[in-house]
Amino acid sequence: MANVADYNYEFYNVTFPAEYVAHVEINRPEKMNAFKEIMWLNLSAIFKSLSHDPSIRSILLTGAGPRAFTAGLDVQAASSGQLSAPPTSDAARKAVGLRRHILEFQDCISSIEKCEKPVICIMHGISYGLAIDMCLSCDIRFSTETTQFSVKEVDIGLAADIGTLSRLPHSVGNHSWVKEIALSARIFGSDEALQHGLVSRVLPDKKTAVEEGLKLASLIASKSPVAVMGTKEIINYSRDRSIADGLNYTAAWNAAMLQTQDMKDAMLSGLQKRQATFSKL
Amino acid sequence: MANVADYNYEFYNVTFPAEYVAHVEINRPEKMNAFKEIMWLNLSAIFKSLSHDPSIRSILLTGAGPRAFTAGLDVQAASSGQLSAPPTSDAARKAVGLRRHILEFQDCISSIEKCEKPVICIMHGISYGLAIDMCLSCDIRFSTETTQFSVKEVDIGLAADIGTLSRLPHSVGNHSWVKEIALSARIFGSDEALQHGLVSRVLPDKKTAVEEGLKLASLIASKSPVAVMGTKEIINYSRDRSIADGLNYTAAWNAAMLQTQDMKDAMLSGLQKRQATFSKL
Amino acid sequence: MANVADYNYEFYNVTFPAEYVAHVEINRPEKMNAFKEIMWLNLSAIFKSLSHDPSIRSILLTGAGPRAFTAGLDVQAASSGQLSAPPTSDAARKAVGLRRHILEFQDCISSIEKCEKPVICIMHGISYGLAIDMCLSCDIRFSTETTQFSVKEVDIGLAADIGTLSRLPHSVGNHSWVKEIALSARIFGSDEALQHGLVSRVLPDKKTAVEEGLKLASLIASKSPVAVMGTKEIINYSRDRSIADGLNYTAAWNAAMLQTQDMKDAMLSGLQKRQATFSKL
Amino acid sequence: MANVADYNYEFYNVTFPAEYVAHVEINRPEKMNAFKEIMWLNLSAIFKSLSHDPSIRSILLTGAGPRAFTAGLDVQAASSGQLSAPPTSDAARKAVGLRRHILEFQDCISSIEKCEKPVICIMHGISYGLAIDMCLSCDIRFSTETTQFSVKEVDIGLAADIGTLSRLPHSVGNHSWVKEIALSARIFGSDEALQHGLVSRVLPDKKTAVEEGLKLASLIASKSPVAVMGTKEIINYSRDRSIADGLNYTAAWNAAMLQTQDMKDAMLSGLQKRQATFSKL
Amino acid sequence: MANVADYNYEFYNVTFPAEYVAHVEINRPEKMNAFKEIMWLNLSAIFKSLSHDPSIRSILLTGAGPRAFTAGLDVQAASSGQLSAPPTSDAARKAVGLRRHILEFQDCISSIEKCEKPVICIMHGISYGLAIDMCLSCDIRFSTETTQFSVKEVDIGLAADIGTLSRLPHSVGNHSWVKEIALSARIFGSDEALQHGLVSRVLPDKKTAVEEGLKLASLIASKSPVAVMGTKEIINYSRDRSIADGLNYTAAWNAAMLQTQDMKDAMLSGLQKRQATFSKL
Amino acid sequence: MANVADYNYEFYNVTFPAEYVAHVEINRPEKMNAFKEIMWLNLSAIFKSLSHDPSIRSILLTGAGPRAFTAGLDVQAASSGQLSAPPTSDAARKAVGLRRHILEFQDCISSIEKCEKPVICIMHGISYGLAIDMCLSCDIRFSTETTQFSVKEVDIGLAADIGTLSRLPHSVGNHSWVKEIALSARIFGSDEALQHGLVSRVLPDKKTAVEEGLKLASLIASKSPVAVMGTKEIINYSRDRSIADGLNYTAAWNAAMLQTQDMKDAMLSGLQKRQATFSKL
Repeated sequence: MANVADYNYEFYNVTFPAEYVAHVEINRPEKMNAFKEIMWLNLSAIFKSLSHDPSIRSILLTGAGPRAFTAGLDVQAASSGQLSAPPTSDAARKAVGLRRHILEFQDCISSIEKCEKPVICIMHGISYGLAIDMCLSCDIRFSTETTQFSVKEVDIGLAADIGTLSRLPHSVGNHSWVKEIALSARIFGSDEALQHGLVSRVLPDKKTAVEEGLKLASLIASKSPVAVMGTKEIINYSRDRSIADGLNYTAAWNAAMLQTQDMKDAMLSGLQKRQATFSKL
Repeated sequence: MANVADYNYEFYNVTFPAEYVAHVEINRPEKMNAFKEIMWLNLSAIFKSLSHDPSIRSILLTGAGPRAFTAGLDVQAASSGQLSAPPTSDAARKAVGLRRHILEFQDCISSIEKCEKPVICIMHGISYGLAIDMCLSCDIRFSTETTQFSVKEVDIGLAADIGTLSRLPHSVGNHSWVKEIALSARIFGSDEALQHGLVSRVLPDKKTAVEEGLKLASLIASKSPVAVMGTKEIINYSRDRSIADGLNYTAAWNAAMLQTQDMKDAMLSGLQKRQATFSKL
Repeated sequence: MANVADYNYEFYNVTFPAEYVAHVEINRPEKMNAFKEIMWLNLSAIFKSLSHDPSIRSILLTGAGPRAFTAGLDVQAASSGQLSAPPTSDAARKAVGLRRHILEFQDCISSIEKCEKPVICIMHGISYGLAIDMCLSCDIRFSTETTQFSVKEVDIGLAADIGTLSRLPHSVGNHSWVKEIALSARIFGSDEALQHGLVSRVLPDKKTAVEEGLKLASLIASKSPVAVMGTKEIINYSRDRSIADGLNYTAAWNAAMLQTQDMKDAMLSGLQKRQATFSKL
Repeated sequence: MANVADYNYEFYNVTFPAEYVAHVEINRPEKMNAFKEIMWLNLSAIFKSLSHDPSIRSILLTGAGPRAFTAGLDVQAASSGQLSAPPTSDAARKAVGLRRHILEFQDCISSIEKCEKPVICIMHGISYGLAIDMCLSCDIRFSTETTQFSVKEVDIGLAADIGTLSRLPHSVGNHSWVKEIALSARIFGSDEALQHGLVSRVLPDKKTAVEEGLKLASLIASKSPVAVMGTKEIINYSRDRSIADGLNYTAAWNAAMLQTQDMKDAMLSGLQKRQATFSKL
Repeated sequence: MANVADYNYEFYNVTFPAEYVAHVEINRPEKMNAFKEIMWLNLSAIFKSLSHDPSIRSILLTGAGPRAFTAGLDVQAASSGQLSAPPTSDAARKAVGLRRHILEFQDCISSIEKCEKPVICIMHGISYGLAIDMCLSCDIRFSTETTQFSVKEVDIGLAADIGTLSRLPHSVGNHSWVKEIALSARIFGSDEALQHGLVSRVLPDKKTAVEEGLKLASLIASKSPVAVMGTKEIINYSRDRSIADGLNYTAAWNAAMLQTQDMKDAMLSGLQKRQATFSKL
Repeated sequence: MANVADYNYEFYNVTFPAEYVAHVEINRPEKMNAFKEIMWLNLSAIFKSLSHDPSIRSILLTGAGPRAFTAGLDVQAASSGQLSAPPTSDAARKAVGLRRHILEFQDCISSIEKCEKPVICIMHGISYGLAIDMCLSCDIRFSTETTQFSVKEVDIGLAADIGTLSRLPHSVGNHSWVKEIALSARIFGSDEALQHGLVSRVLPDKKTAVEEGLKLASLIASKSPVAVMGTKEIINYSRDRSIADGLNYTAAWNAAMLQTQDMKDAMLSGLQKRQATFSKL
């Protein structure tokens, strides 16, 4: 079992609802799970631990409370942090300070993408701004019939800089829609999110969505962890490169990974119609 | 206000239907807005001016008349231009002449993409060949229930070379459909265009579509022009590169742009539930 | 006419059902068209021949029998081949052997993509594992109402390595769905395949799908082969690169190809509302 | 012959010292050929004309007077231009103005690189700042025994932004030296420039260097212009991309260019030990 | 002044020999500065601190004692660490463990490259294996007349994996020599290192080399830190990308950085022939 | 031992002068080793065999006779092959034929680069045209005091298309020199080749050069073949990509390769100062 003490962070509940499955819940419901700086630093710490934790094979990411996955950045906290930070009147020095801050913040959110284990994100209720940045760093996105999405950043005078604008065009096929939602900041629902490809399933409500997410997480956790880790890694590698490069990397990767005992175990248990067990990774 | 005299070109009506919004209408309805060389040269001139015009924040692109957004290249004009151009029997020298011509033509169409301000394209009626090249250089695409699309070029014996084949696989998610329409030149309607991701909205008719396009253009024009310009730029940059590169560029970009007064104004007016005003860009 | 003797391979029926059209049928129906090593070697030989065969302008790829396009790799054959191959206990030497094997296998499947002529794939019945690798190497994908798809590889303990993981994120827009099907290995149907963009048409049954595929192949074969070859090549080139690179390559390509007689013939026959004929390529 | 009237610009002498050869001389010797804005705009105009001028096959670029190739940017002019330009106190709006200015300036200097004909640069005397940006946009660099080079920009408080920092690491093999000269702004001579690969020849003095440059320009101008143009284009393309991409582009390029009559003429005159003549390009 | 307490690590002496200059000395001379795991972890910690330390503008990296910059990895320590780590007989699981280990080790060495301030490396005496990985992560490399270099890794049965093989072809122009030294592991001296471009200066002995390194570090530290940081960043960015991409990034970068007060101060002090002072960064 | 019968090709002598070393001699001295089509096809066959031959670990490539490594393409043979090939007057169809021919020819020469084992090339005497293409596909280049090099292609009216123009800018640091030799086709000697980085050693004469090449080949062949193969592969991979990509690939590669017994054997024999023996690869 994962060591619960390793995941004891303010603003997060980390639980282990099924074998090899972790559930990370953002827990600041009274503020609609809006993010302060400590929260993205802790998010990163949690996903770095999960990445190498041998007792974890898949992860569910949700937001506490009925109202919001997350309302995004806690603007009040942010304005007293990000913008007031560099105490200088020199625009270049301010720029250096802002750049360091953005890069650090991006790194925190990217730790979900870099986590070796697949992450399923359940978006319910208000899912604004940072909610989009975060969900795009996850592998799989589900939502509910009442989810309200918004790429909110232009409404507060900035281009989204924690990942949304870089990941959207590589996550969703309809680029007219990508530009429409990013330039207008308008709120849209799960119907559009499903139609245009931001989520792959819409469930009736949060409860069902979390259950379905957990079911999928459990299914993935039942597979060979070698196969699952490679699948995530190779898709992410290939997404960013040409097909020829993707094929070549796959060959280098599987040159090691096909030597796993898991293949024999998986094939045998497949023939015997029983569930295979795989050793830790 | 934009200076109308700056936009006085044959075959185009350029108007300013709302604050900070330009409306560029291709105006050769008697030929179904088919393009002669002077028309793409002028298109480029118009979009280069709009790009730096501080009184413009978003742009609507439409075709005059009820029948066509554009029927594409004016083949008669083209054959007396493009193909007859290099008066030589040496195939290599002909190739050099053709290449110069193609590059220049591509540059004209790409000036829509390079324009700093978002461009919304309304496709109605006949939208063939160059219509597809042009709309893919725009940011957002709407169509009507009777739009007839076709990647027409193979029907006149050539692979589309002004942008369609380069931009389609980066604009639309279903690559089986991309190949199907490009290899068959078959006519398809808005249902397919929406389903597979070429447009993000289908409106009942041209009038409604132009109204909706104008509404969206006005909405975008009401936002911080710093945020809007950055959003277009970063999405375009990221579309062509890896996510890591996109994130890094975003940090460099926003190091300057987060220093804008617009952020404070936007946040404050958000809290006060009123419309912010932003200084010119 | 293509020389039938050139295409006489075990496990394949290659026929020429229409002018300039080849039909490649995988023919091992008693094993649900599961692949042994000789089959992918022969597949490659066939597509290399077709690529330069002047009597062929488009290709249909199907599986024999009512039950399966292909059930994928013949695991029994594979385990006695791929995995037992390197007779060494040194993990690095095993890795070198496996890498050579994977690269060779990838090359065989990629010969469909590298074939100069468009390939339409009809997926019916069981379409597991290698079926997905293969169809993604084709240009156009149709399926039937009863097709059962699965990215099966994680179920046998490996990350798919013959192309699926490299090509999926460049073929389908919804990356949440891409990860969902690749990580879960779950079986899905044509409704999902169409909705999320893996296929561009779903036909009622295999017979209709093959007929429609043949119709489309015939339509493409009626076009200028210079235009068709360029269209496939430029889309594939552009898919893997930036739009600027795609435009530049297009200009170099068409500098030669616009000198074809086909353009005059196509335009003239278009004006005369008759079918053009084009010389061999 | 080239039309002299086409090249009549203040601050430049453009002459035609040999058949098919243009000589562009920067002509502001009383200010050590320091650049004002009009000078780089005109430089761009000149090279755009030369690029397509059929009477030109190679180009020599030099600076007038005994003292300097160019001392770089005319800082006085620049400070009244570049920096005072955006009349705003908003750092983001200033940034937009500066970015437009830099991009335009870069484009002017890049027009040397984009010119279809090879450009040989003779660097004598003071060669500071913009001198390095410009010479790196040329194809071939010669210097004299007394040339004084400096990547001067850090000494005026900025990172060089008109091309030096982007082109140096792709022009010179010793990256320790690249960083050393760029970070220290120290003055170095032709011995280092030759040893580390910034120039390919050092001549005793300006007169000899111009003569040798002219000799080389004449030699290049005597070759097939189809071959010469392709050689410049393919090297530039390949420098920025992988070898596999370079090979593929070469094949597309030469598919047209090998059809030239020049090949037969060149081979025949080679066998006959006489000078071939090639038709205009 | 930098806070000395921040840089108190075993096996390192960090001193501040001149204004804004840090000197990092690897301090395990009794073992020829061979690296144990704790040493690269601490190296990374030091350079991460220096990167954002406003009292530091350039860095010198040397090895303690007369015999070696570093003899490379402490093989004894490594074999008890790296290879014994994953307690499993499954080759795939071993591979996952090794990959994590390599990536972490690479990250430590890359922290020199990612450090915002330029790093000058002085290589004296034995400079084997990891010495090459490390020096290539630095910006500027000096050596002495008796330095002995070797890309040692093939001699212990592996391909160098902490950076040498990735950075050498981007640091040195002569690729025949790159392959020769990497494939043969032969020892070579400073004459070759200078001739082929691995170092930019060879000094008589360690003492002189450190003095010259310090002089250069002081010179760089006297420049605008905004200009210096940008110069390092843009060269590194451009080295890995096309020239067009480099130019575009430079424009985004300098849009902020040209707003610095340093430019005015640098220009003014240049005119007044005095040393400028720049505020902290 | 390698099976001599496997390497029995007209125009080549393949011998095995030392353990694990192959010597490939181009053998058409009466024509100065000029290449006919069959020769490059056979060259490719030889290197494909050597690539996987477990009894070979390094390769020497030389030309027979005292006069030439190779004088390049046999122009007479080429003109009756390459150019007369496509019997059509349609420039586009000719282009398709030429492109297929170029791609096939490039693939043959690239088989040297793709060969898993390092290849050392000895260039003596006349080394024109194809000689440069070929040597750049090798890993290490030596020449003699009388070698005459020329990138000859512009003299016969074409841009070199079998690899020279794509590989030169990635093999040699001085790009001014690269353009100078490629645009002028002038003959140059070993002094320039060494100074600018085309070769890494110049030996007095062919005999000494072959001996030194053999010595180096033997040295490389004495190392772990796992380490040597990885070193070639990773340098080639990294040369074409960013440093970050190179590092990531190295980690995937060595995750398998560090599991080799060779590491223990190499370290142990290093400590015991004796020659290790490694099992076949």
